[in-house]
Amino acid sequence: MPQSPAECVFCKIYAGEIPGEFLYRDDRCFVIRDINPVAPVHLLVIPVEHYVHSVDASPEHEAMLGHLMLVAQTVAKQEGVYETGYRMAVNQGPNAGQTVDHLHLHVIGGRRLEHEG
Amino acid sequence: MPQSPAECVFCKIYAGEIPGEFLYRDDRCFVIRDINPVAPVHLLVIPVEHYVHSVDASPEHEAMLGHLMLVAQTVAKQEGVYETGYRMAVNQGPNAGQTVDHLHLHVIGGRRLEHEG
Repeated sequence: MPQSPAECVFCKIYAGEIPGEFLYRDDRCFVIRDINPVAPVHLLVIPVEHYVHSVDASPEHEAMLGHLMLVAQTVAKQEGVYETGYRMAVNQGPNAGQTVDHLHLHVIGGRRLEHEG
Repeated sequence: MPQSPAECVFCKIYAGEIPGEFLYRDDRCFVIRDINPVAPVHLLVIPVEHYVHSVDASPEHEAMLGHLMLVAQTVAKQEGVYETGYRMAVNQGPNAGQTVDHLHLHVIGGRRLEHEG
């Protein structure tokens, strides 16, 4: 069953109910480190609003979704992986291994990545 | 050296100079199959405008970038991977293995994906 916002770990971090270090924060999204990093740099760009998938966003949310990608490059610069390269990835549903039912954009870099997506 | 639009394979496909099957097309983006698929479903959502990276897009382009993600889910439905899950990924720069210097969003599904991003 999808988590409700009240049960969502990302919503709780944003609300300060669970401690979290914010690498970036504005009124539309925030950035934290992945607690199970797969590379030296592994960040999560998370919209404040609780969407399960990008599908829950509608065309009215296009700017918000694009904003996540632009914030991703801002934090990639902060973390020093902008020149060497990085991957932005959104995993949706079981085959992609989505583990938190709140849309989030992975930013992964700091080593050579396999071509798995 | 980054390719110019005149040399870009994606721009040539869009212009009809190289044959390509469009799975989706509107005035902002188009969708083709990856010629080297890493999974049963491997599509590319490509903005019509020639950006090298998302960094070449500015806040004015937020809606365009978000549009790529919404089109990704449209074609994920068309291809039957919407329920089973899929990954959306953008590879930027050498460490991520970017091979065409025109921003593109991978849509990958049809099998269980490793957690490489």
